[in-house]
Amino acid sequence: MALNDYIRNIQDFPKPGINFKDITPLLNNPEARNECLQLLVNSLRDKKIDKVVGVESRGFFFGMLLAQELNVGFVPVRKPKKLPFSVISASYELEYGTDTLEIHTDAIQKGEKILIHDDVLATGGTAKAVAELVEQLGGEIVQFNFLMELAFLNGRNKISQYKIYSPLVY
Amino acid sequence: MALNDYIRNIQDFPKPGINFKDITPLLNNPEARNECLQLLVNSLRDKKIDKVVGVESRGFFFGMLLAQELNVGFVPVRKPKKLPFSVISASYELEYGTDTLEIHTDAIQKGEKILIHDDVLATGGTAKAVAELVEQLGGEIVQFNFLMELAFLNGRNKISQYKIYSPLVY
Repeated sequence: MALNDYIRNIQDFPKPGINFKDITPLLNNPEARNECLQLLVNSLRDKKIDKVVGVESRGFFFGMLLAQELNVGFVPVRKPKKLPFSVISASYELEYGTDTLEIHTDAIQKGEKILIHDDVLATGGTAKAVAELVEQLGGEIVQFNFLMELAFLNGRNKISQYKIYSPLVY
Repeated sequence: MALNDYIRNIQDFPKPGINFKDITPLLNNPEARNECLQLLVNSLRDKKIDKVVGVESRGFFFGMLLAQELNVGFVPVRKPKKLPFSVISASYELEYGTDTLEIHTDAIQKGEKILIHDDVLATGGTAKAVAELVEQLGGEIVQFNFLMELAFLNGRNKISQYKIYSPLVY
């Protein structure tokens, strides 16, 4: 099965010049979805994971499946004002301006081994902000995994000190 | 295990007078999360389900787990401008103004048996809009399930023609 067949290219979304990778066909096909999940899980073989952190909102999809498969807690990282309990936040630069992500302060205990999951590694700004949040709470980042990496955007450079795995690389 | 112990009450969130039910402790505890998932799955015993529709964004959590457990496709219903392919939309009333949800036009085929999942049944406005989207695509709604129902808001009345199940009722 070619996983790439379940990623749909949408030209000029969300704005002109962007070739958006739509993962909804992958979500909607149980065989492809399961193959993708198994690749992600296999990349963690022999690694101890205490919690999976998933990034709003497309990182929630496989983040939850990974937490369930590994039988560990799931922690959402969300946009501001979405998490109701006490939070810490980290900001990152966008093309114009900045964006902010939050995590609950009690979501991770010091020393816990953390897998961070998001759907796409693009410029790496989001990933770096999530790493800051996890480490501020004392979590130890074991791996970043993504469904896909847009290698031409060099996002790896922003999180080069961590292990990174993506079944799909463009 | 008392599932209710994993639902945290947050007073005055997102605004004064609202007692928000925070599900993040449930997501973060694999035993409680799994018990909740099994209750949701058991409620579907002997029912054929072709696809699970999950509602942005807290409906993505258990929606994905249900789709995986049932080995069927997952379809996200999202806020406007989030889904990149062709969509249909449905609006529903809020306290002030309206909100809109979208679904991909190719996400459901005519006659498919659909489970709709969201985290909370409150006033039922969202649920009704999702039902409209699913039926407009020709899907047959087998059940709505929610993690919890806020019974005092009478959301059931808006979707009274459907089967509804929630492990937690307040």
